[in-house]
Amino acid sequence: MNNDNKTVFETEWFSVEQRYFDHIQSLKGKPYYTICSPDGVIILALTHDGKIILVRQFRPSLNQYTLEVPSGAIDSTETPQEAAARELYEETGYRCEHLSCIGRGRIMLSRLSAYEFAFYGTGAVQDPTFQPQEDIQVVLVTPTEFRHLVTSGEFEQFAMLGLLVLADWRLGSVLRQF
Amino acid sequence: MNNDNKTVFETEWFSVEQRYFDHIQSLKGKPYYTICSPDGVIILALTHDGKIILVRQFRPSLNQYTLEVPSGAIDSTETPQEAAARELYEETGYRCEHLSCIGRGRIMLSRLSAYEFAFYGTGAVQDPTFQPQEDIQVVLVTPTEFRHLVTSGEFEQFAMLGLLVLADWRLGSVLRQF
Repeated sequence: MNNDNKTVFETEWFSVEQRYFDHIQSLKGKPYYTICSPDGVIILALTHDGKIILVRQFRPSLNQYTLEVPSGAIDSTETPQEAAARELYEETGYRCEHLSCIGRGRIMLSRLSAYEFAFYGTGAVQDPTFQPQEDIQVVLVTPTEFRHLVTSGEFEQFAMLGLLVLADWRLGSVLRQF
Repeated sequence: MNNDNKTVFETEWFSVEQRYFDHIQSLKGKPYYTICSPDGVIILALTHDGKIILVRQFRPSLNQYTLEVPSGAIDSTETPQEAAARELYEETGYRCEHLSCIGRGRIMLSRLSAYEFAFYGTGAVQDPTFQPQEDIQVVLVTPTEFRHLVTSGEFEQFAMLGLLVLADWRLGSVLRQF
């Protein structure tokens, strides 16, 4: 990599950096554009009675409402663990009895530099004083209902499905509930 | 959505569009930046003797070599099925006896507009006349080896793990091999 890195586009949420990788044959002499944003967290959390906590929200990039698990960027002042607890609470009002990092991964190896830290939580209970955000609705589903949402094509978030495998392989006995 | 959509940054591979969503309270009056690129394919393919076909390649966005399943953009002239067979062949020289779409999903709901079409292939055999691409190396692993790569943190592609769940729930008996 030479030293011609520069930011060629910037927003409040992400930037695009132009870099050169002349030591890689197929990239020699060509600019490469990397999308840079803070690392994030993605949280698979189960309520005390075993329901999966999903959120329904409007996603401008798709111009539609989606179902997904809570997620968000890690602030510069916090750990992934703190970010996971905060994002889950901010989006849903739930706090987990146990919430642990089960690994980290990438959602788009070809273009994004950020890591996503994967969290698995259990025993979640909603704060009765929680004031929901206007544009985010909490949806609780059983594992059976979730599986149906996936096989019917209604649930589209690949990373959440990846979390199921990670949780199962790291902690055991997660997928057999589904 | 009003009509102030405009492309504010453009490369050969993706563009950034600025859009407004004034009917959504939390977005009122603020620009939203969507990353636009063609839909893609991602392929979980097993060789005739049950090994998973991975590729090791240099990813400029991470400035490192990664292990992942074959994937790529769908050309404007081809179907997802054609793109999946082409990408698998171009990157690895393998052709599947059976290759089918098991669903579609999103890798980054917050920012990307593209769909990824998920494919599951079996009975893959490598063309003996295949000339490998200089910067992509084929790596075959058993399901047990793959599981170890995931739990050790060496394999980081969440979408591939999502494909495992999709394949298992759509076709049955995929995950129990792991």
